[in-house]
Amino acid sequence: MSTADTPEPTPGKRGRVNRRGFLTGAGIAGAGLAVGGAAGAGITYSATADQSSDPGAATVPFYGDHQAGITTSQQNSLVFAAFDLKSTTVHEVEVMMARWAAAASLLAEGKPVGPVESRPEAPPADTGEAFDLGPHRLTVTVGFGPSFFDDRLGLAAKRPAALAPLGQLAVDTTIDPSISGGDICVQACSEDPQVAFHAVRNLARIGRNVVTLRWLQEGFGRASATSTSQVTPRNLFGFKDGTANIKAEERSVAAQWVWVGDETDQPWMSGGSYLVTRKIRMHIEAWDSDDISDQERIFGRTKDSGAPLSGGSEFTDLDFTATSADGHTEIDRFSHVRLAHADNNGGAQILRRGYNYTDGIDTRTGTLAAGLFFMAFQKNAHEQFARIQNNLAQDALNEYISPISSSLWAIPPGLTEIGDWYGKKMFGYQG
Amino acid sequence: MSTADTPEPTPGKRGRVNRRGFLTGAGIAGAGLAVGGAAGAGITYSATADQSSDPGAATVPFYGDHQAGITTSQQNSLVFAAFDLKSTTVHEVEVMMARWAAAASLLAEGKPVGPVESRPEAPPADTGEAFDLGPHRLTVTVGFGPSFFDDRLGLAAKRPAALAPLGQLAVDTTIDPSISGGDICVQACSEDPQVAFHAVRNLARIGRNVVTLRWLQEGFGRASATSTSQVTPRNLFGFKDGTANIKAEERSVAAQWVWVGDETDQPWMSGGSYLVTRKIRMHIEAWDSDDISDQERIFGRTKDSGAPLSGGSEFTDLDFTATSADGHTEIDRFSHVRLAHADNNGGAQILRRGYNYTDGIDTRTGTLAAGLFFMAFQKNAHEQFARIQNNLAQDALNEYISPISSSLWAIPPGLTEIGDWYGKKMFGYQG
Repeated sequence: MSTADTPEPTPGKRGRVNRRGFLTGAGIAGAGLAVGGAAGAGITYSATADQSSDPGAATVPFYGDHQAGITTSQQNSLVFAAFDLKSTTVHEVEVMMARWAAAASLLAEGKPVGPVESRPEAPPADTGEAFDLGPHRLTVTVGFGPSFFDDRLGLAAKRPAALAPLGQLAVDTTIDPSISGGDICVQACSEDPQVAFHAVRNLARIGRNVVTLRWLQEGFGRASATSTSQVTPRNLFGFKDGTANIKAEERSVAAQWVWVGDETDQPWMSGGSYLVTRKIRMHIEAWDSDDISDQERIFGRTKDSGAPLSGGSEFTDLDFTATSADGHTEIDRFSHVRLAHADNNGGAQILRRGYNYTDGIDTRTGTLAAGLFFMAFQKNAHEQFARIQNNLAQDALNEYISPISSSLWAIPPGLTEIGDWYGKKMFGYQG
Repeated sequence: MSTADTPEPTPGKRGRVNRRGFLTGAGIAGAGLAVGGAAGAGITYSATADQSSDPGAATVPFYGDHQAGITTSQQNSLVFAAFDLKSTTVHEVEVMMARWAAAASLLAEGKPVGPVESRPEAPPADTGEAFDLGPHRLTVTVGFGPSFFDDRLGLAAKRPAALAPLGQLAVDTTIDPSISGGDICVQACSEDPQVAFHAVRNLARIGRNVVTLRWLQEGFGRASATSTSQVTPRNLFGFKDGTANIKAEERSVAAQWVWVGDETDQPWMSGGSYLVTRKIRMHIEAWDSDDISDQERIFGRTKDSGAPLSGGSEFTDLDFTATSADGHTEIDRFSHVRLAHADNNGGAQILRRGYNYTDGIDTRTGTLAAGLFFMAFQKNAHEQFARIQNNLAQDALNEYISPISSSLWAIPPGLTEIGDWYGKKMFGYQG
């Protein structure tokens, strides 16, 4: 049933080549590896062969010191999945992580995770919905939640001190545990939502005997610029968000605020980062009935241009001392921009990388169930995010938002070469 | 607080000019018109002024014989909203429809529905989250459900015979009424999900005293090609979907199958169409464990290329008589492609325009709550969609899918000029 423009799969050869590269140094084996491995030699299907003139063909390098999807300039679509362990056999988790690494490296190039028709009597290795799409700058980023290091796998000694749960922060009165936390997370970002969905779905499928989906969140529309070349996006309150965000191309700034260094108590986290995810419901209808002058007071910036209320244009430094004729500061004491600013948080900064979301409507009220899926990467979330968030307890914006999910994740460093996999050092294998 | 690059609003003049153009012939008035009207003269904000070199600047013409978003080549993102009437005062519904028309015409050009800062003590007319984005081919399509014509507004005599509810079709054992039906619908499609969301949100806001949101569905990834220049997209089962769909540029085919003609019992529907929306949950994990040969038997096409199992390539005609060596037809008797084909439905065709969706996970099972938000436009849904759907009662695919929402909508014809609005003729005003 293959057509002329589809190369006939040659599973034996591909399996062998890849399995060898894959297993060397990893010290793991298992029948399951064949699927991830079978696709490793770079098969391209007809559907992905003619992308050279297509913007969808753009890729983000997969291998490197850090995982992609952190300082990568932000893509337009997110699918974020939290998984719980179903298996507590360490070996099975290791094999899954190795297979995920092989699959993610292929997905980053726009390739399927395996052939469609190696055997007619077997399910296809790749689910297929992204066959005609390029990678559209897909990044896959994998991490571990605090619960991963409880007693089940016997890895408690590997838990970094910085992965202690954040606990209940000052504003956390509305958190839903069923959409918070989890043992393992996958962040898939792409310019195309179907590509991001496809990535998460295929990793979930590869891991179906080892993990189960705990919760899943889609996002659209960048909620922060992570690069100086990106126009600052707007949140669903219509304000530019992330004007003062860390810009990823500033490597020294990223080294200072984003990447875990040699100071870590767990060497396997060196070169990694900590991710905070927070789902923040925004009470859109209430906000939309608020006066523009009040909206601007709450944010501390103008709505149209994003300029600080102390004057200038979007990127002008904020002047918290500038006062109006009536003696009040131009930037309100309880404004979001003031309370979140590094100057008022001991210099602490975070790399925000959030997405807007909508879950349809809240059927109890007929209002939009929409808001911000906040994500922020940092060296230490207790010293950075939690500090800033506690300062935001007085934020005037809190009247219009409710956090409904909160999670902390340890994101291990990048995979440096073929054969490396997520958490390899943490599990005790040589790098 | 306006910055130099933002033209200062001049509400008096804009309001007057627009209100005049708007009201002539419409015979309606109301304080509420000022907001829709205020933006009508073509204000552009700084954020939308520099889009000429931006693919986001692409527009779909708003005025015409038919509403946009039907034979328009399909965009990548959908936000579909169903509303129930909160007000049963006809005049208030008319005013809302007129304001929606004014707003939709501006949104189609990438303009806000009104100024941000006409008065500091008033909420901004536009919610702002699309200020920096072009229209990205935004289309807004408005329709009426059967319940719109019940006793509340006194418009029962205006209900077309073809808008009789579809009732329970053969496979409809899992329909959820809370996400089905509604008095009024809005389909917003754009290449950018934030632009589509912004459109629905601002129409909901304009209508907040007249209608309430009943349900809302987002979609991503075209699920059908509606133009011969579009690569056939794939559904979440990984198969090309819509190879044999009506191609919108075939005007004679659209006239035959999509557009209501002079045969209608309700002249206000001439030039309109009927839309069926169906939310179809796809049991992804079960599907993903099915053999490729069985998957292909169920669809009647190969997964990779989309060629019929009777041979050829994607666009080869299906041969339902071709038999294999063992005497069975190559295209299975219960295959989706056979049962849905026009030849097996008295020639009936529909214009499909669906989107893939995911709602996160089904918390009862930990499986993906994902599938297809099916949409199809046609001249008469009882003679077209319902006929085909009832033929699909035997579809082998039914084992893997469950319809969970089903709705029928009358889509009135296009707005032909400034001053026209949704349902104007239906409400009894001159065209």
